[in-house]
Amino acid sequence: MSNNKRERRGLMLILSGPSGAGKTALSRLLLSEYKDMELSISSTTRAARPGEVDGEHYHFIDDDTFRAMAKNGDFLEWAAVFGAFYGTPRAAVEIALAQGRDVLFDIDWQGAQQLKQAAASDLVKVFILPPSLGELEARLRKRDQDNDSVIAGRMARARDEINHWGEYHYVIVNGDVEHSMEDLRAILSAERRLRKRQPWLGEFVRNLIQPF
Amino acid sequence: MSNNKRERRGLMLILSGPSGAGKTALSRLLLSEYKDMELSISSTTRAARPGEVDGEHYHFIDDDTFRAMAKNGDFLEWAAVFGAFYGTPRAAVEIALAQGRDVLFDIDWQGAQQLKQAAASDLVKVFILPPSLGELEARLRKRDQDNDSVIAGRMARARDEINHWGEYHYVIVNGDVEHSMEDLRAILSAERRLRKRQPWLGEFVRNLIQPF
Repeated sequence: MSNNKRERRGLMLILSGPSGAGKTALSRLLLSEYKDMELSISSTTRAARPGEVDGEHYHFIDDDTFRAMAKNGDFLEWAAVFGAFYGTPRAAVEIALAQGRDVLFDIDWQGAQQLKQAAASDLVKVFILPPSLGELEARLRKRDQDNDSVIAGRMARARDEINHWGEYHYVIVNGDVEHSMEDLRAILSAERRLRKRQPWLGEFVRNLIQPF
Repeated sequence: MSNNKRERRGLMLILSGPSGAGKTALSRLLLSEYKDMELSISSTTRAARPGEVDGEHYHFIDDDTFRAMAKNGDFLEWAAVFGAFYGTPRAAVEIALAQGRDVLFDIDWQGAQQLKQAAASDLVKVFILPPSLGELEARLRKRDQDNDSVIAGRMARARDEINHWGEYHYVIVNGDVEHSMEDLRAILSAERRLRKRQPWLGEFVRNLIQPF
C-alpha cells in the first residue's frame, strides 16, 4: 500500500424537515456518535434569550459587526428574520472541511437553498419526514400541551416545509429513530468516500502512473 | 407507518479500471452477495470463442440484427472493435431498473462515457485502482507467465485507463478485496437510498400533506 496521507475533505450535512419530524434528536445522536462532526453555529444580532450561551447556541454579535461581515462575504448565507440578522460564518465551516471534519446544519429549506449557492459540491442534503401528519401533531402537542393556535400555526408551517422535500438528495421517513440513524450512517459512509472528497487521490494517481 | 409500497428504482453500477486491478473478482463477489443485482450482458457480432455461452458471456447476433437494433436506438451504447460490433441492449437494463434491480457493468472508460449519454441519473461509476503498478504487473504476470510483450502492452493500456479515474463518482484502491467490498457495500447502501431512486416518495408526500 501507499504512504500517501489519505485525508478526506469534510462535508456539510444539512438536515431539514418540519418541526416535530425529529431533526434535533437525530442531530444530537449524530454529534455524539461522530466525533469528527461539529454543529454549525450561526451568528445573530438578536439578544440572547435566558439559557442561551454565546458560542454554543449562537454567536451573539452587534449590528455593525454583522453588516461588515456580510459585506465582506464572511457568511455562507444570511437572512433577516423579525428584525434581526442570522448568518452562517464561512471561516469555521471552511476550516472544518479542509481538516476532514463534517459540519452539521439543522436548518429549514430557505437556509438550505441559500447554502447551495455557497458551496454546492460540499453539500449532502437530507430531508426528514414524519411518518404521518397525525404523528407530527402528536409530537408537537407533547411539547406545547395547552396551546392549540401555536400547534395550528406549526402544522401550517410543517406543510410548507414538507413541500420542499424534492430539493434534497436523501429523504428519511423518521418513524423509528434507530432505523433513521442506520440511514444516516449509510449516507455518511458513502458520501465520505466520494472521489471529490478524497483530495489525496490526485497525487496517488500521479505517483501510480509515473514511469518506474 | 404507511402502507405505500416503497419500491426503489435500480441503479447501474459501473466498475472500470485497468486489467489486473480486480474488477472481475469484485464483480463476482457483488453478484453472489446481492441477489437483486445482475450483470449486463452485451450483444456482439463476433463469433463465440470456445467455452463462451450465448446469453451468458454475450448475446451473439448477426450483423443485420445489430445494425437494425442500433438504428432503432435499442442499445444504451455500442462500438465497433476490431471489425465486430459490441453493444449494451437497452431493454434488459430498463426492465431491471424499473423492477428495482441493479445492473452491474464491467466496462472500460470508453464504454462508461458512452453509457453516460444514455441515462446519467441512473449511473453509479466506480473506478478500481491497483495499490501500485508493481502489484498490477505481478497480477498480470500470474495470468500470462511467459509473454513479456503482452504484459508490456497491458501495462501501457493500464496507464491509459487509469488516466480516466477523474470521471468516476468513487475511486477504490483495491489493495485488499474485503476492504474494497466494504467500500462497495457502503456505496450501494447509500446510493440505493437517494431520493431520485425512491419513486414512491412522491405519492407518500402527497398523502402526507393532504388535509385530513
